[in-house]
Amino acid sequence: MAMFIGRNRKARVTYGFDEIALVPGNVTINPNEVDITFEIPNSGGSPVGLAIPILASAMDGVVDVQFAGEMGKLGGLAVLNLEGIQTRYEDPEEVLLKVLDADKEHVTALLQKIYQEPVQEDLIAARIEEIKGFGIPAAVSSIPQKAERYGHIAQEAGVDVFVVQSTVSTVRHISTEYRSLDLKQFCRGMRCPVIVGNTVGYEVTLEIMECGVAGVLVGVGPGAACTSRGVLGLGVPQVTATVDCAAARDYHFKKSGKYVPIITDGGMSKGGDVCKALVVWTGRS
Amino acid sequence: MAMFIGRNRKARVTYGFDEIALVPGNVTINPNEVDITFEIPNSGGSPVGLAIPILASAMDGVVDVQFAGEMGKLGGLAVLNLEGIQTRYEDPEEVLLKVLDADKEHVTALLQKIYQEPVQEDLIAARIEEIKGFGIPAAVSSIPQKAERYGHIAQEAGVDVFVVQSTVSTVRHISTEYRSLDLKQFCRGMRCPVIVGNTVGYEVTLEIMECGVAGVLVGVGPGAACTSRGVLGLGVPQVTATVDCAAARDYHFKKSGKYVPIITDGGMSKGGDVCKALVVWTGRS
Amino acid sequence: MAMFIGRNRKARVTYGFDEIALVPGNVTINPNEVDITFEIPNSGGSPVGLAIPILASAMDGVVDVQFAGEMGKLGGLAVLNLEGIQTRYEDPEEVLLKVLDADKEHVTALLQKIYQEPVQEDLIAARIEEIKGFGIPAAVSSIPQKAERYGHIAQEAGVDVFVVQSTVSTVRHISTEYRSLDLKQFCRGMRCPVIVGNTVGYEVTLEIMECGVAGVLVGVGPGAACTSRGVLGLGVPQVTATVDCAAARDYHFKKSGKYVPIITDGGMSKGGDVCKALVVWTGRS
Amino acid sequence: MAMFIGRNRKARVTYGFDEIALVPGNVTINPNEVDITFEIPNSGGSPVGLAIPILASAMDGVVDVQFAGEMGKLGGLAVLNLEGIQTRYEDPEEVLLKVLDADKEHVTALLQKIYQEPVQEDLIAARIEEIKGFGIPAAVSSIPQKAERYGHIAQEAGVDVFVVQSTVSTVRHISTEYRSLDLKQFCRGMRCPVIVGNTVGYEVTLEIMECGVAGVLVGVGPGAACTSRGVLGLGVPQVTATVDCAAARDYHFKKSGKYVPIITDGGMSKGGDVCKALVVWTGRS
Repeated sequence: MAMFIGRNRKARVTYGFDEIALVPGNVTINPNEVDITFEIPNSGGSPVGLAIPILASAMDGVVDVQFAGEMGKLGGLAVLNLEGIQTRYEDPEEVLLKVLDADKEHVTALLQKIYQEPVQEDLIAARIEEIKGFGIPAAVSSIPQKAERYGHIAQEAGVDVFVVQSTVSTVRHISTEYRSLDLKQFCRGMRCPVIVGNTVGYEVTLEIMECGVAGVLVGVGPGAACTSRGVLGLGVPQVTATVDCAAARDYHFKKSGKYVPIITDGGMSKGGDVCKALVVWTGRS
Repeated sequence: MAMFIGRNRKARVTYGFDEIALVPGNVTINPNEVDITFEIPNSGGSPVGLAIPILASAMDGVVDVQFAGEMGKLGGLAVLNLEGIQTRYEDPEEVLLKVLDADKEHVTALLQKIYQEPVQEDLIAARIEEIKGFGIPAAVSSIPQKAERYGHIAQEAGVDVFVVQSTVSTVRHISTEYRSLDLKQFCRGMRCPVIVGNTVGYEVTLEIMECGVAGVLVGVGPGAACTSRGVLGLGVPQVTATVDCAAARDYHFKKSGKYVPIITDGGMSKGGDVCKALVVWTGRS
Repeated sequence: MAMFIGRNRKARVTYGFDEIALVPGNVTINPNEVDITFEIPNSGGSPVGLAIPILASAMDGVVDVQFAGEMGKLGGLAVLNLEGIQTRYEDPEEVLLKVLDADKEHVTALLQKIYQEPVQEDLIAARIEEIKGFGIPAAVSSIPQKAERYGHIAQEAGVDVFVVQSTVSTVRHISTEYRSLDLKQFCRGMRCPVIVGNTVGYEVTLEIMECGVAGVLVGVGPGAACTSRGVLGLGVPQVTATVDCAAARDYHFKKSGKYVPIITDGGMSKGGDVCKALVVWTGRS
Repeated sequence: MAMFIGRNRKARVTYGFDEIALVPGNVTINPNEVDITFEIPNSGGSPVGLAIPILASAMDGVVDVQFAGEMGKLGGLAVLNLEGIQTRYEDPEEVLLKVLDADKEHVTALLQKIYQEPVQEDLIAARIEEIKGFGIPAAVSSIPQKAERYGHIAQEAGVDVFVVQSTVSTVRHISTEYRSLDLKQFCRGMRCPVIVGNTVGYEVTLEIMECGVAGVLVGVGPGAACTSRGVLGLGVPQVTATVDCAAARDYHFKKSGKYVPIITDGGMSKGGDVCKALVVWTGRS
């Protein structure tokens, strides 16, 4: 719904998880008889199937090899961030212990120093192999600027899902200073599914889907650890963002016959928010 | 009122007690001259009359035999939960004292152990007789899965009102693993009024009323002790739920000539909320 | 604006002082050149003029003779409650000191005892004379049940304004147990202006004005010391109540040629709220 | 959007920074390639150019000569208040230290005493010269009553921007007691750009622009240090105020061909609010 926020200028009312609730329907169903499996499509092979439709966010503070293993065994998929401690250090455990031991006063300086260490490209392959060692699919992420380089390495190491992630993703980026990632060409060059994000808009999601991606991450600014709203004034509440991108997904499917899933990313803080996210994400009332 | 929460998708604005207030009318009335008596209809006999239109919730922490007696003497009706301490233990008082004495650390484990004890079916009849010993109507509740078994026992013991209660009630439940309660048949088999709940929707309330129930409990998630909203993301604010179900009640009455009362259940935290609930419940502005 | 709060049922959105703000106009004015004098009309004589359009509420904890004197000298009008300590005790100061000295535990019991003492009717005249001794108009209030008796006494003592006040005022009160005050007849029998309240509605305000009152107090439940909202669920936010009653005042004036002021009563907690109240009260945008 | 706040009376829904957020577009841009320079037009000479479009508010507690120098070097413009400590005292530092040393109990009395000291007109020129000594433009402000006198002095001292500021500015001020500032004539008499404020409305902003000003300050009551809302009940949330005044600016430009910038003044408390202010201020969606 659009509201005038001043003379000749409208804004749209948007909604987050705390502002909606689910309403029981006229029919109930035995929970055991509900199918919640999920598939990431793969134009170059068989889709990546998940028993539960939940991904762990590619945050350095969330996912390491061990966590990816546990998550995979439960039926979900954890994405390892290729620009974090796991690929900068042979022994990331040692580094994390240093952070834990640091006092409040020095921890920021320590973190800055830790992330100055360059990514060791041989560790990319090593981590992927370790994750695959659990007998589960391996997923990793990089920023667009590194996608071509790391994507190639990851693919050689047998990665199952590659994620290209930035705060705000578009297909059209204006710059005369550097060359932007050509997403269409990148997807064509990869043999595994490529997931791209994050977006919040209908048009952008459509444009990204038309590049041949296998999934789109939805959400700018809703996460608990996210500073985009305060620092940049930027963000769309997660329910509206998800509904809009679900509409893009459904339109793209109707037009192309290809179902590209969206993955709602962030803004969930209670168990009930996950239920709300799943319902909103289906695109059905 | 429906609002777009995103592209092509509407949600409805709903209201709880804190969001409404009563407005004085153009005519005032001497409080002594207002009739607030209430009747639970009974197709198989005379209705159950109450001096005040208030029920005590079938919660193990609220209603025991003594409480039911006091409430009945005041003109209301307290519902005893048949799956609580009162029917699992000969001497529930002793068990409650143990809970009171337990420290915070062990109380959850203790409670889990207490509720592992099976329901003793002979205690069902005993409790009903104790309540009726106060010279007041006795009301008990069970979950749908136990309704047939406990309903039969309670009826034999002379219960006056039987309540079938679950978080979300529908007439249509899908399951291939077990047989669902046939509500129509159950009501037909009982000689006392059967109250069913909880619901929040117009259609479901109508469907339940068409099964021959004597009343419908309205409310999913609004109670202070209720975790449905946080854990399941499920719930409708109580004013809207009550208004919708009152509309179903009025439509059902118009169509069938049978007045099936609704009982608004939960979400009241102040004295004024009870006044609001009564006004909303009348269905009149 | 009406909103559906559920199936077939609308409620109206209402506004309090915190939800509105004043907007600067296209013309500014030197504050010294604004006229804020106020008149309470008097069909039986000359109007009661005030230099500032503010009354002090007829609350026992607010107005005594001394306060009325100070307020009158500043140009306002304080209303003395005829059912308070001032008319029950020869020396109210002594009683107030006892209240001040009481500890928290016993103060409620003490207050209950203090208000059991009967009103001494000769004190009514005495207090009015004391107030008039300051050379200012005297205003007193009573509940409707006592209005005829106290109104007569107050009039004999030369009172300038008589206020009949109850939580919710209407002209039509239903009772078979007692006789209600006939407001029209009461106003006709008084030689001084009669102010009546409280109301919040357009129709009721009109009906009260048609009885020949000199002013209407507007507000049910907005005051800081008011429990109507929590205990009775009753109340209309003060801005909407004032706007509605101002519309009744303007319509009554158009129809009858008689301007009966409304007095917005309660809900102001900041200096800015007084400014908002004055603007809302004018009935002009 | 207008809402009925009561019978026959509408109010408008307005918005502040916390109620809006920016939404990412379909195209992204390399931040290095965005032009954010800003110009204050000057009918009597060349415009005053700024590298960053940010002014420091003419508050005595914010801007002194040193601060103006630092701000100017960064590309912004700080406005020195001509009725503050800087122009009342040869050595303002000494006065500020006294304030810092004062205990809470005496600080208000001390501040009242400090501001009783008259403005020393020779200090006006001195401060302007000191600021210009940093090789940056100098900006100063006065209230309308002193604008003619101080404007003349400041102009002689070579000031680059002169600001006439009051809580609520209009072109039409009614008074029989004193002569109001004739804004049109004042602007014509000044050789440097004249910025006027504050306003919040479309019509007033237009009327002020038609007097030949070089900019309009927008905002009544939104500042953290501002008491207009609580004490006067006066104020418009800053987003709506800015949008309305931007519409006036655009209409004035269309009609006259002269682009008079508006400067949104107050209500920003987070970094993101500055981004929101810039977007709202552009007048483009």
